[in-house]
Amino acid sequence: MIFTEPRLCDISVATGMLQNADGHYRKSYRDLTGLYADSEAFDAILAQKADAIAYEVTSYTPGAKTSDIIMGVTRMEPGKVGREYFLTRGHIHANGDRPEVYHTLSGRGVMQMESPEGEVRLVEMGPQQVCYVPPYWIHRSVNIGDDDLVMFFAYPADSGQDYGIIERSGGMRVRIMDDGRGGWVAEDNPAWRNRTPDEVASILNRAEAMA
Amino acid sequence: MIFTEPRLCDISVATGMLQNADGHYRKSYRDLTGLYADSEAFDAILAQKADAIAYEVTSYTPGAKTSDIIMGVTRMEPGKVGREYFLTRGHIHANGDRPEVYHTLSGRGVMQMESPEGEVRLVEMGPQQVCYVPPYWIHRSVNIGDDDLVMFFAYPADSGQDYGIIERSGGMRVRIMDDGRGGWVAEDNPAWRNRTPDEVASILNRAEAMA
Repeated sequence: MIFTEPRLCDISVATGMLQNADGHYRKSYRDLTGLYADSEAFDAILAQKADAIAYEVTSYTPGAKTSDIIMGVTRMEPGKVGREYFLTRGHIHANGDRPEVYHTLSGRGVMQMESPEGEVRLVEMGPQQVCYVPPYWIHRSVNIGDDDLVMFFAYPADSGQDYGIIERSGGMRVRIMDDGRGGWVAEDNPAWRNRTPDEVASILNRAEAMA
Repeated sequence: MIFTEPRLCDISVATGMLQNADGHYRKSYRDLTGLYADSEAFDAILAQKADAIAYEVTSYTPGAKTSDIIMGVTRMEPGKVGREYFLTRGHIHANGDRPEVYHTLSGRGVMQMESPEGEVRLVEMGPQQVCYVPPYWIHRSVNIGDDDLVMFFAYPADSGQDYGIIERSGGMRVRIMDDGRGGWVAEDNPAWRNRTPDEVASILNRAEAMA
């Protein structure tokens, strides 16, 4: 029998990348159009650096089975759109019944989570803090610091990502905003609408169908 | 529906522990009796500190399913038994078809791996290096440095551990020894005997039965 070979990857905390990885994607500011509350402030950013990297992910995917683990590093630039801190698009796992582990290596962030039924959980993280994101929680990370936010992550290889779930509800329920005193505050997103019981059921059923 | 709550754990690299964990075990030197080549040197250590902690593991277990992830931190003392560097007992996952991810946070180690058929892989690791241990590889860590070896790990929640596999083959195939020049060298373990094709088949079949 041929056994899969071990893999050694180096994390460069300074560049926020996993080296000897096999996957790499970048999101530019242009790619994040429509995510932020303050469209005027966002347009000003686009005018300056539409194609600059807002965040990027390097990862290693050894297999595709439930029992395998994809690992990687995500790096996000610091900044704000108006009062709103930079964020990742966010997703729920397409196979919703899959968790994810995030280990902050540098910077300061908020792991913003929202259950299919609209419950909100906000976990602030700094270096050497690990957040377990349980199955079924929509999650995004927000950079509330002055430097790059760099996190190591691991999740089951068949998790998949559904990015549309956030768009379909008009964004996430809250936005992470500058509180004017050097910190952050969660403010309600007036465009948000909760998922219907049918939509919640379809998220749970989809996970069962993929199990 | 009640969704599992997120969990924030802190890693204390200085103490080598995961805080806000729900599992903790310690191995004393006495617990490691029989693992090292130099029994005289080992007895001298026992005479000094039989019940001191050789290594310890703190972990968080959110569930028990294939798709869930157990995470934790392992900390091992530095030192040698004669020329042989301190090591963990080592195991194969009882459900052999399960990988594990090890991220070195401080210290220097070797991830010692051995396939059921007796192939050996030795991966040296320092801070911010991550080793993906693929399914079916017996694995143990060895502290080749002068300080604690501290690693963060993650693996599927239904992996399980079979520690007996190493004892049944007379130890692992090689031993990680001081090379006398400040480094390490792998030396054959004369007591080691390879697993028979039947034993290999039973490891693979057991994994299938548990899948």
